[in-house]
Formats: sequence, C-alpha cells, structure tokens
Amino acid sequence: MSIRHYLKFNDLSVREYGYLLERSALIKRKFKQYEKHHPLVDRTLAMIFEKASTRTRVSFEAGMYQMGGSVVHLTTGDSQLGRAEPIEDSARVISRMVDIVMIRTFGQDKIEKFAQFSRVPVINGLTNEFHPCQILADLFTLTEYRPAPGGNPLDAIKGKVVAWVGDGNNMANTWLQAAELLDFTVHVSTPSGYEVDAQLAGISNPGCYRVFSDPKAACQGADLVTTDVWTSMGYEAENEVRRAAFRQWCVDTDMMAVAKPDALFMHCLPAHRGEEVTAEVIDGPQSVVWDEAENRMHVQKALMEYLLLGQVA
Amino acid sequence: MSIRHYLKFNDLSVREYGYLLERSALIKRKFKQYEKHHPLVDRTLAMIFEKASTRTRVSFEAGMYQMGGSVVHLTTGDSQLGRAEPIEDSARVISRMVDIVMIRTFGQDKIEKFAQFSRVPVINGLTNEFHPCQILADLFTLTEYRPAPGGNPLDAIKGKVVAWVGDGNNMANTWLQAAELLDFTVHVSTPSGYEVDAQLAGISNPGCYRVFSDPKAACQGADLVTTDVWTSMGYEAENEVRRAAFRQWCVDTDMMAVAKPDALFMHCLPAHRGEEVTAEVIDGPQSVVWDEAENRMHVQKALMEYLLLGQVA
Amino acid sequence: MSIRHYLKFNDLSVREYGYLLERSALIKRKFKQYEKHHPLVDRTLAMIFEKASTRTRVSFEAGMYQMGGSVVHLTTGDSQLGRAEPIEDSARVISRMVDIVMIRTFGQDKIEKFAQFSRVPVINGLTNEFHPCQILADLFTLTEYRPAPGGNPLDAIKGKVVAWVGDGNNMANTWLQAAELLDFTVHVSTPSGYEVDAQLAGISNPGCYRVFSDPKAACQGADLVTTDVWTSMGYEAENEVRRAAFRQWCVDTDMMAVAKPDALFMHCLPAHRGEEVTAEVIDGPQSVVWDEAENRMHVQKALMEYLLLGQVA
Repeated sequence: MSIRHYLKFNDLSVREYGYLLERSALIKRKFKQYEKHHPLVDRTLAMIFEKASTRTRVSFEAGMYQMGGSVVHLTTGDSQLGRAEPIEDSARVISRMVDIVMIRTFGQDKIEKFAQFSRVPVINGLTNEFHPCQILADLFTLTEYRPAPGGNPLDAIKGKVVAWVGDGNNMANTWLQAAELLDFTVHVSTPSGYEVDAQLAGISNPGCYRVFSDPKAACQGADLVTTDVWTSMGYEAENEVRRAAFRQWCVDTDMMAVAKPDALFMHCLPAHRGEEVTAEVIDGPQSVVWDEAENRMHVQKALMEYLLLGQVA
Repeated sequence: MSIRHYLKFNDLSVREYGYLLERSALIKRKFKQYEKHHPLVDRTLAMIFEKASTRTRVSFEAGMYQMGGSVVHLTTGDSQLGRAEPIEDSARVISRMVDIVMIRTFGQDKIEKFAQFSRVPVINGLTNEFHPCQILADLFTLTEYRPAPGGNPLDAIKGKVVAWVGDGNNMANTWLQAAELLDFTVHVSTPSGYEVDAQLAGISNPGCYRVFSDPKAACQGADLVTTDVWTSMGYEAENEVRRAAFRQWCVDTDMMAVAKPDALFMHCLPAHRGEEVTAEVIDGPQSVVWDEAENRMHVQKALMEYLLLGQVA
Repeated sequence: MSIRHYLKFNDLSVREYGYLLERSALIKRKFKQYEKHHPLVDRTLAMIFEKASTRTRVSFEAGMYQMGGSVVHLTTGDSQLGRAEPIEDSARVISRMVDIVMIRTFGQDKIEKFAQFSRVPVINGLTNEFHPCQILADLFTLTEYRPAPGGNPLDAIKGKVVAWVGDGNNMANTWLQAAELLDFTVHVSTPSGYEVDAQLAGISNPGCYRVFSDPKAACQGADLVTTDVWTSMGYEAENEVRRAAFRQWCVDTDMMAVAKPDALFMHCLPAHRGEEVTAEVIDGPQSVVWDEAENRMHVQKALMEYLLLGQVA
C-alpha cells in the first residue's frame, strides 16, 4: 500500500470524505461516552510546529492520546526544519522513528518536500497556502447541525452556499478546493488586494465560487457565513494597513440577516471581536464556533486513523 | 455533578482534605510498590505554564502518566493565555478537548476567569497570590513524619504551630487559609513591607495566625519551620533591595533550636543556601525537603483523581 | 542492586555490550513487526536538554513510548540545570519522581554530578566530551551490515579498523573508548589543533588508535569511515576558523576508494554536504546513515530496558 499524505484538500477523494465524515461522527460519539477506542496503540505522531498554536496542538495531541497513541512535539528550535539540515534529511530521519507526522509551517513547498522524502503519512496542520484540517472540521460541523434527510453527510454539503468574508488566505483557498471537490459554492468577498488565489488552489471549475466586492452581497442566501482574522500569523507587519483595508469586512448582524434564516456562523479562531466579527454574531445563537473548534479533534482522529490503518470495517 | 476546581486552599472542605490525605498515602504506597493504578486512562491533563517550573512540571506530568492518563504541556508561547485571544475563549476551546487543566500563571484573576469558562476542573499550579498544591504536599509530609496516634491525618495537623519565616508571599497566604480551615496556627515573621495579606487570603478568624517582628520568636515552640526564596519569580528586579531587607530572615540552627525538639524544616524549593536558609539546616536531620518535593506528585495525583472521579470506594 | 548509569562508553562491560547488541536486534525486529513490547509500563523517562536536538529527542521519546513508558521533556528554560538551584538538588528532586533520566548538556562534570545525586539511572545523551549512545548505535549498525560468521556481534566488531576523519570531538573521544574496550582500532585524522584527547578519554592502551596527519592515509584499509560536522554545537563562534582548518578533512570518493571495498560510511547527522562529506559519499551506496540514525532508537531502547530491568531472560 502506498503512503497517503494529507497536504491539501484534494489529496482525498469524494468517497473518502464520505467515509471520514461518518467515521468522525462515530469517533466523537465514543469520546462523549468515554468508550475506549485505541486503534493506534504503539503508533507515534511527530508534530512539527514552526508557528505557535493552541488549537492545532491540543486537538492533535489529545486526539492521538485518546486513540492509544503517543506524541512527540517538536518546535522550530528543536527540529530546525530546513535550517541545520536539509528538509529531505529531517524527513528521512524522523519518518524512520515515528508513524505519522503533522507539520505546521510557512511555505507549502516545505511540507511537500518533507512528504516526498517521508516513509510515513504527513498531515498539513496549516501552511501559508492551505488549511485542509480546518475545512474538514467545518464541513463536519455543518453535517452535524444541518444533516441531510437520508443521513449521508455528503448530501448535507452538496449544493450549499458558503460565504467567505475577509482575507483571501489559506482558509479561503482551501474552501475553494473543497467546493470544487464536494460540489458546493463559495461566495468570496475580500478587500481589493487580498483576493483568493484560485490558480494556487488549482481550481479548474470556476463555477465552484463567485466573487463579490460587497461582503453583504456575498452573504445573501448563504447556508454558512465564515471569516478569519484580518492579519494571519506571519503578516503582523502589515497589521495597520490591513485594519484599514478590511474595515468593511466585519461579519455583523446585518450580514447574517441576509443569509438563510438558519445560516450558521463559523470562525477557525482565535477571534478578534469588533474586527472581523462582532461580539453579537460570534457569541450569538447562529455561531457554532466552539463545536467547530472541538470538531478539529474528532475529524483529525478519523483522519489519522485512516491514513495509518485505511478504512476500518 | 458540578465541576470542582482547586484554585485556592479553601475550595475543598475539611472532610475532603481528610479523604485526600488518606488517599495520597495509599497512592504513594502503590507507587513505591510499582502497583499499577490506572484510574485516569483516556483522561488528558492540559498544563499551561506562564512561569517556568521543574517541580510543578515533573510532578503533575509524571503523576498523570502513572495514573494511565496523558498530558499536553503548553507554555506561554504556545498558549498565549489572554494575549492572542480572550482567556474566556481559550478556556472554552481547551476544555472541550481535555479532561482537566493545570495553570501556573501570574494573577489569580486569570485562573479564576479561566475556571469560570471551563467545562472541566482547573487546578492552581501557582499564582502570585496562592499555591495550594504545595501546602497540601507540606501538610501530607507533616502527617507522614508526625502521624497522630489514631491515624487520622487531620488530627496530625490540628493544633500544630507552623512558623513561616521570610516573604509574605503566595505560600504564606496559603498557609493562612490552611490554618483557618484545618485548625492550626501560623507564626508569621516577615521583614517590614513584605507582610502576609490576610485580607487577600480571605481570613475571617484572626486567631489562625500570629505576626512576629523577630523571626526567631516566630520559631519558638513550632512543630514546623518553613520558608521560601527571598525573591520569587516575577520579582527579580527587586532582588538587591530584597536581599538587604531579608538579611535577618535566614532560617539557621539558632532558629531551629527554639522550635520543638522534633520540629521539621520544609522548603518548597529551589533553595538558596546562605540566603533564606543555611546549608546546615536544609541539609540537616530535621529537613524533609526531598520528601516534601516528592509528595507534590502524590498529593496531586490524589487531587486529580478526586476532581475527575470523586471519592473512590 | 546498585544504580547503573551510562555516562561514558566504558560504564558497561564487554559482556554487557554483547548482550545489548543482541537485545537491540531483537527489539528492532519486534518494532518492524509491530509486535507489542511494553516492559516499561509505568516507567517515566525525564529528558533534560540544554542543547537542541532532533535525533536524540525523537529517538529517546518514541523509543520510550514504544516500550509502554512515558516521557517528560525538559528544556533548559524549564529545568535550569545548575542555574536556579544546584545540580545536586535538581538530581535529588527529579529522581524522586521519574525512573530514568537522559541528559544532553555541555560539560561532562554536570552529568557526573547529576548522576552522583540521582536515585535512578542517568544516560549521557551527549556532552562536550562524550557521546556513547551514538557509538553504540554505530557499532550496532556495523554488526547489522557486516555480521560475524558465528553471529556473535562482538566478533563483528573485534579487529576492525574505523577511520575517524575530522574534528577530535566527543564522537572521536568515544570511539577511542569503544576501541579499547571492544578490541578494534581507530585511525584518527584531525587538523592540527583539533586532536582527539586520549587522556580525557581515559585510554590506557595506546594501541587502540593510530594518528594520521593525512586523512586519506587514515582511511587506508578501513572497514568503516566516519566523520562529523566541522563545527559542533557550542563552537559556532569558531565557524570561519574551522572551515579554513578543516578544508582537507572532507570525506570524498577518493578517501572511500582506499578503504576496504565493502567499507561503510557513517555520520551521526546533521550533515553538511560539501563540507565534512561530499554528497556523492553520504548519498552513495556505501553510506548507511539513515539506518544508523534509526538505530539510535533501537539501541537506546535496549539500553533503557537494561538499566531499568537488568538482563531479561
């Protein structure tokens, strides 16, 4: 069996997403009932962080422990990815000792190169370009709150409209990849100069997204409204310029009012209330951000189990 | 069952301390005999450190592993408590993914706020104001060395005299809380300007402590003499001023000579020999500091087990 | 049973090395077959790092998990070895809470002092003077690639010629100790001013090594050619001076050509291609550096098991 990586959203097929979404629900149920589920005994996850993180850190680490596995947590100082030695060598050595690797780094090229020389599966825990684990968590959260009549999670996603309001960043790029693969539509509204990069995302069907200059227009009829901080990690120097440029891209009750009446609000966190979203919205009844955060753990558990053991039963 | 936190000493009742002290003895016995004791399988402890620590780190982490659980260790850089996002949000997210949280931070208000928004128990691993886990370890050590005739650990504590010599810091504040709750007396002697804060400690019975300007007078008839470094973490800038002010507050053989003949010496460590205590005392026959340090682990194991599972059998 | 430490190569006997090499092979076989091997359940390893590391970190940590144990990872900031408190006190406290300690530090005197006050075994994970775990891994790798006819791993080592090309550092010192104990010969070639320190290594039989001013002459007839970076951690300030001094000490195909036809190339990594070794050699057919790196984990597992449980069956 060849090694499977998860570096960008379309590294998995539609059928595999169907399986993962169902499996995530089962794994979450077991967790809530304290039902022992230890398929990954004797398996070790190496986590390599070049950017700090709470959510990614805790969700992967606690998730691995819950499945009976163990974790080695390497920060840049420890692992010197590409600095003290070529990434190829780090990949060769680390992948001899552990069973799966999660990397949170800057350029997608770094993680691609690591995966190329790794003997074990590599998971993208966020790069400048993509954040597939978060989108998987968001889609799973959508299937929980708005399940399809027949129970097929893919049906809960198909045909939906997701409004992306704000920075055309790694999250936005990944939403496009997901929309093309799983057959839904993204309404993207970003300030000028911060557009989503469909070419980088490798989008071949331009029908999977629509661009709006007016963020409120993007929210019209949406099933899900979602955003992210104005200044992602690594762009702090641009903070002031961005605050000015993004001023109109704050998700507020006016925007939510034009979305579907049962529209959800999501945010991958951390959130800056009063900037990209008002407190009224993120702390309001349509917001599912805490479940969304928790679901990172459940979907990543399903993902790690799948990459290591394949489809179970 | 409502969530129980351990943020200050009086968050537990007298009856609960009786149970915890007995349970600690049992848990320690199992440890010494390599007897498997895994009540916390599938439970994860998140440790959030805003101040570095050896003892707190190792005692909580090794203790959790010994009980079959697992640990996620977050330092400030990783967790950004209250910086990248409001503490409320960190508490909501982290407490969705783990089962119990230990926090070592600066202001008590931070840990109080975290606990308020947490779905799981929160333990104070040291704040500027209080250090309940250390006092619990100290009291347990006292019950080991000076057990009561009937074997009830609370009887070993009741009526005793504890001399606190030095800084009126978080340790001193917590000794006062313990004295009031468990019915013993603290003799406090601090330099002027470094007094213990009985109001902060919430003391309503002023009889639980006596203030002495002369440290030797405070040691008179004490069952236990204890101290701490002159300059706690976070106060390094005051180091020179403090060295001058505290010069007389060095526990030496003269002070130990006026305490009870079988008085013990304790110190929460790290110790600076020649400053707050002489080598003769800390390395002498009355010193129980190594057992005291080890006991952090045993009492915290009992504490975590209790907060997660309640009273066992 | 008295506590056994592994601070320098000759802390173990010839007989014990025979056992460890055989045990490492068995432990590696189990790992490759995902055969559960949990002799160290409820045992905790504390790792104290004063110098960063990928290989040492991952190999010890993953190895401990694979044996059912757990790990507390302390960096200098956390553990303040010898800074916030005397090393003696750290040793006393930490060794009360964990079962075995690995230390990567600067001076050998620090680890010796720690071991003196420790209640549990201490392993040298690299000091300025010695690196016994790496040499053990290298010797194990040699026995894998060039096994002796009868299968006795010590016979695979006895009488061999190892060429050390480059810095007379901790690795070189340890090779000398190994040669004297296990009866093989080291050909050492270093630039002037960077000689190996046989006195520091405690060598009493000068026949165990030969010094060559010409690195190629050192490689003549060697069974194994090995080197290390020109500038080890802690010597970065000398980088430019060293680059000039070491220019001729680059292992290339010319050097490998004069070694035995089936000679192996080893390097403890990270490697700087074009400095101490050419890409042609390290990425060529005689290089076994990736197996060598992986073997760190297997031999250290055998070592920890032995120090904790003695010889098994």
